[in-house]
Amino acid sequence: MFITFEGIEGTGKTTQIKLLKAFLEESGHTVDVTLEPGGSRIGRELRKILLNMESTDITGECELFLYLADRAQHVSQVIRPAVEAGKIVISDRFADSTIVYQGYGRGLDPKLLRSLNDVAVGSHWPDLTILLDIEPEVGLKRAMTRNLQENKMQEEGRFEAESLEFHNRIREGYLTWAALNHERIIVVNADQSPEKVSAEINSKITKILKKHG
Amino acid sequence: MFITFEGIEGTGKTTQIKLLKAFLEESGHTVDVTLEPGGSRIGRELRKILLNMESTDITGECELFLYLADRAQHVSQVIRPAVEAGKIVISDRFADSTIVYQGYGRGLDPKLLRSLNDVAVGSHWPDLTILLDIEPEVGLKRAMTRNLQENKMQEEGRFEAESLEFHNRIREGYLTWAALNHERIIVVNADQSPEKVSAEINSKITKILKKHG
Repeated sequence: MFITFEGIEGTGKTTQIKLLKAFLEESGHTVDVTLEPGGSRIGRELRKILLNMESTDITGECELFLYLADRAQHVSQVIRPAVEAGKIVISDRFADSTIVYQGYGRGLDPKLLRSLNDVAVGSHWPDLTILLDIEPEVGLKRAMTRNLQENKMQEEGRFEAESLEFHNRIREGYLTWAALNHERIIVVNADQSPEKVSAEINSKITKILKKHG
Repeated sequence: MFITFEGIEGTGKTTQIKLLKAFLEESGHTVDVTLEPGGSRIGRELRKILLNMESTDITGECELFLYLADRAQHVSQVIRPAVEAGKIVISDRFADSTIVYQGYGRGLDPKLLRSLNDVAVGSHWPDLTILLDIEPEVGLKRAMTRNLQENKMQEEGRFEAESLEFHNRIREGYLTWAALNHERIIVVNADQSPEKVSAEINSKITKILKKHG
């Protein structure tokens, strides 16, 4: 089973992934946690280029292809082998991020993005995607505080440095895309305590795992 | 006007580009010479990943998307501005390399590669492409000698280290692709002295520039 987490900066994806991993392991599953960009060796080199504040000269198309390169390598070297070994794989961001950020955010065609993603993803689209939804004002404040605390603003702050208007477009893009893919994407309100968010996710996952048998 | 040079390793692309640049400048043109991968700032970082001998774990799809990322950035930051300023731009490798190496070499679908390239290239397909053709045995010997002399085998030798069978496929792929695009791609025999090759190219270019007015 392959699960992905999506959402704007500061929705608490990292925290929720840790909590879900612990919950699933308690039920006897083996869980691998990974992320994009940067889930593979080459991906980590691409992450440096993609998230660095100095990459202001990067064009929309170049950015798109770098994410797809990262994803193709991630699927073939990390996700596919783990899923085939019977593990549950949880990825912090995946193909939906590209469709939403490059499509709704940068104005590229979401249909084209879906078909480009098919080349990178192959048959390994997620079985389930959890979209953590929050007001951009709230999320960005959280993300900024974290980056400043961890001293990562220069290194990984390129998206946090975008305008609030950009992040509003991304949030709306996520909600539109989730509605178009409601059989796979579950929207969870992230503007509540981590415990409440986690309980909501666990209850939904439990239902789905029961269905899967 | 936008001219590209193509061919396997060791066909003498660098030498011929220098000679063509000098010839065109004597006729009063302004000429910018560039290359792929690595024609832009971000491209130079990608070149390190793509050509390094350590990148043996790179998948065909990841490699493809990295070349497309390099190309999108190269077109928008280097080629388009120079062409729009009225210069002649000569690039050492361009989109045909991806179609031949990833298509005929690695087995990806050439039609898909053409449409992916359209996203990266936009309306900036070359006006003219010169394919330098040579027996892989001869070309590879030249390329190896050069890389050893310049001490660049580890850093830039990933393709030279491929089998002779791979390079034979690439050479045949180039000839097939040139036949399918004969209105744009000119094949020149590179197994003769640099002066003879250059004279052949200059005579062809002169005819084309006359036609362009």
